[in-house]
Amino acid sequence: MSERWVWRLQERPEGMDFEPAFEFKSELIPELAPGEILIKNIYIGMDAGTRNWLHPREDGFDVPLPLGSAMIGILVGTIEESNHPAYTKGMLVRAYGQWADYSIVNPAEAGVFVVDPDIDDIRQYIGLIGPSGWTSYFGVLDVGKPKPGETFLVSAAAGSTGSIAGQVARIAGCRTIGIAGSDEKIDWIKSDLGFDEGINYKKDNVEEKIREYAPNGIDIYFDNVAGPILDAVLPNMAIHGRIALSGLMDSYNAEGPVPGPYKFEYLLHKRVSITGFFSPDYFHLGHESDARMRQWLDEGLITFRFDETNGVENTLTAYKKMFTGGNIGKSIVKV
Amino acid sequence: MSERWVWRLQERPEGMDFEPAFEFKSELIPELAPGEILIKNIYIGMDAGTRNWLHPREDGFDVPLPLGSAMIGILVGTIEESNHPAYTKGMLVRAYGQWADYSIVNPAEAGVFVVDPDIDDIRQYIGLIGPSGWTSYFGVLDVGKPKPGETFLVSAAAGSTGSIAGQVARIAGCRTIGIAGSDEKIDWIKSDLGFDEGINYKKDNVEEKIREYAPNGIDIYFDNVAGPILDAVLPNMAIHGRIALSGLMDSYNAEGPVPGPYKFEYLLHKRVSITGFFSPDYFHLGHESDARMRQWLDEGLITFRFDETNGVENTLTAYKKMFTGGNIGKSIVKV
Repeated sequence: MSERWVWRLQERPEGMDFEPAFEFKSELIPELAPGEILIKNIYIGMDAGTRNWLHPREDGFDVPLPLGSAMIGILVGTIEESNHPAYTKGMLVRAYGQWADYSIVNPAEAGVFVVDPDIDDIRQYIGLIGPSGWTSYFGVLDVGKPKPGETFLVSAAAGSTGSIAGQVARIAGCRTIGIAGSDEKIDWIKSDLGFDEGINYKKDNVEEKIREYAPNGIDIYFDNVAGPILDAVLPNMAIHGRIALSGLMDSYNAEGPVPGPYKFEYLLHKRVSITGFFSPDYFHLGHESDARMRQWLDEGLITFRFDETNGVENTLTAYKKMFTGGNIGKSIVKV
Repeated sequence: MSERWVWRLQERPEGMDFEPAFEFKSELIPELAPGEILIKNIYIGMDAGTRNWLHPREDGFDVPLPLGSAMIGILVGTIEESNHPAYTKGMLVRAYGQWADYSIVNPAEAGVFVVDPDIDDIRQYIGLIGPSGWTSYFGVLDVGKPKPGETFLVSAAAGSTGSIAGQVARIAGCRTIGIAGSDEKIDWIKSDLGFDEGINYKKDNVEEKIREYAPNGIDIYFDNVAGPILDAVLPNMAIHGRIALSGLMDSYNAEGPVPGPYKFEYLLHKRVSITGFFSPDYFHLGHESDARMRQWLDEGLITFRFDETNGVENTLTAYKKMFTGGNIGKSIVKV
């Protein structure tokens, strides 16, 4: 092959109107530079946090992706060609590569991991085993610091991070409550993932339901969305409760400043802490989460679901699905 | 004496309109119940947190003071009469007692401490040595976890808690920056308290000034006010910075919900934690702070200023002064 199909960012998207912002085009694959490798992408994972790369602002944790760049995502694929002595053709790898059918990456910059192909489902390398897993694993254990018997709540509980976080908390001995946007999702997290309770935020009064399910308060809230749901949680936090702030799904697509929680004062009333964190800070510890996830997976203690979209040409559909809550489990693209 | 003058709460105040809410009246001192003591109040300390007792709401950390009750405050005084074997007439004590010239308290409930009268200034028992000291000491050291060389910022820096917090951080080896509302206050915290920099929020662009004085970011923000100043601080926090949320001065007198910080998202961008705390949680460790403060005081390492109002009949003037920033140092009443 000498050509590839690739998604390039052409302008900054407004809200969730991604179509005008990206162009899907065919282009020549350039000669590999020394040290580079060419990956044949098999699966590409969609991550809400990547929305930050599309903003022009430079004061966030991510620098904006320059216009004209190929969009970046986590992927699993096989090495097709290598200009690097440590990587050889045919190896199965996980890497940050391009939204494309073929990725050209520099292993030192792209977090390339050679993975064991002898696994039931290689998609897990962009599911449980990988950045989504790290976010959930370290967010629950390092930020949330769960103790057996505590009550754990997570928003976007049927999403990739939320579904893992609830299971990690369950394994750590917590009672777990999940918030999601449909009865189907609630059924899934309770029956398949072992959540104790579920709250459908589109139908239920979230604040009342939390009070009902956690009359002694929430010890740990793993927050993927902020916004009004955080306001429903704050008055229900237990004294000295911890909030692990993983994402701001509610405001990623907002234009202009979004007010913080109106119930902010409960941080003081309840002596609660909120801690923002993100998985790259745990990159150096990723092997710990990966090994544990693989073990739990093999033992049948943890499960994960993929919401698969077929064809790299349909990547924007998969991407948008994640922001609209259309997916159950992790939104991925089968290239 | 068989009569006393006492401030009783008659209705819930609106905002800072305290006059209609309180009545100053003369009443008979009742016979002491078994275990009770009668204290001749010498100084009464004003604390912003007591504003919470005046609200009707029951979901805060303090239960509302019932209408008709004598208002409560921290005070230092001498025991005038005792019905308790451990306390004898003439002892100098610190206690939570009444806004009055004489307090009747049950030592078990009123946190009565017998204090050393052999100190240069007995007012320190409601200044550096006591709850204001605890708040600052544990807020800086336990919540903020300062490391030498870090940059520490405090709001309401010329108030009682803020002025101590800045000095504790300085002693812990931090560069210290204080925010206050007048040039006189800024001069005081820099020349007398040893702050490295001061920002006058009534004149300066707070966000720009913080950026100028802390180009590498704020490692610890000790926040007494929240509100717009917190929004000016958030984009200037260092990665993994800590915010010790001590008070919400900006909203204590607000009616209705107050939005949280508009720059809330920076918690995630900068992976910052905000932790609400309050000094009663450190009550059991108060002796540690008290001993350290006394030592620093004797060594001349720390200083404190009182803003004294004369006459218990003028208590509301002293109380209001604290909320309007009219005081430098701790607002107290000389009975």
